Amino acid sequence: MVDILHRMGIGASPQGVFEAVTQINRLSAWWTDDTSGTPEIGGVIHFQFGDLGFFDMKVLELDPGRRVVWQVVDGPKEWIGTKVIWDLKPQGEGTTVLFKHQGWTEPVEFMHHCSTKWATYLMSLKALLETGKGDPAPNDYRISLDAD
Amino acid sequence: MVDILHRMGIGASPQGVFEAVTQINRLSAWWTDDTSGTPEIGGVIHFQFGDLGFFDMKVLELDPGRRVVWQVVDGPKEWIGTKVIWDLKPQGEGTTVLFKHQGWTEPVEFMHHCSTKWATYLMSLKALLETGKGDPAPNDYRISLDAD
Repeated sequence: MVDILHRMGIGASPQGVFEAVTQINRLSAWWTDDTSGTPEIGGVIHFQFGDLGFFDMKVLELDPGRRVVWQVVDGPKEWIGTKVIWDLKPQGEGTTVLFKHQGWTEPVEFMHHCSTKWATYLMSLKALLETGKGDPAPNDYRISLDAD
Repeated sequence: MVDILHRMGIGASPQGVFEAVTQINRLSAWWTDDTSGTPEIGGVIHFQFGDLGFFDMKVLELDPGRRVVWQVVDGPKEWIGTKVIWDLKPQGEGTTVLFKHQGWTEPVEFMHHCSTKWATYLMSLKALLETGKGDPAPNDYRISLDAD
């Protein structure tokens, strides 16, 4: 098993970051604008990326201001069963986000892509919280030469 | 051992990307503006980031337009002995870059940071090659709340 790891400092409170990863309207403002579902324990959040595909995340843990855990229940086959883990730590007036996309079976080329892509979405999350405007799909930063 | 993986599509030829990761003046234009040394097999390239620190990379492989391998010989203790591997593949008129920072002993928090930071530098490399202007340190994209 291999994991994607990232760390991002964000100039917003842990509660503010927590809301941005647990409320549908806030998720829509930095990851994909087509987000729906039930962001409660046991609920499933649906993240649609136009014709490119989607991820369905079951909410496993919600610890306000501290930790969120999702498990992928539908989407690309490489993603199914993996977990996305958000650990939030206060730092001064802001928050350090430790991000882990855990449990890839193999370090396939698609995993390389998703690692870079997560970084750009974390930058979008940071921008949303620090400036009020993120860059969610379909207007996200493109890292591929063809469709992302 | 754990690895940092990324993939980036760049609108430039494999030879153009190869030059950007093997010539001192090109490395200076996307990673850190304070780059020096001998970018030949067996040579050491010194990447200085002001007072924050530095990386010394020994050049292990140079396969023009296809592959570059560095080994860290001095710098942060977590980096020493790790390898940085660039695999370049032509894609249409452009290049797909497969990036690996291989051989971390443990997935420490600093590794999370470096994973995200590498993504921002790959975006700088892409910008350099596609627009003529990168964002090398010390004017790079900041992902920490304190010094990067």
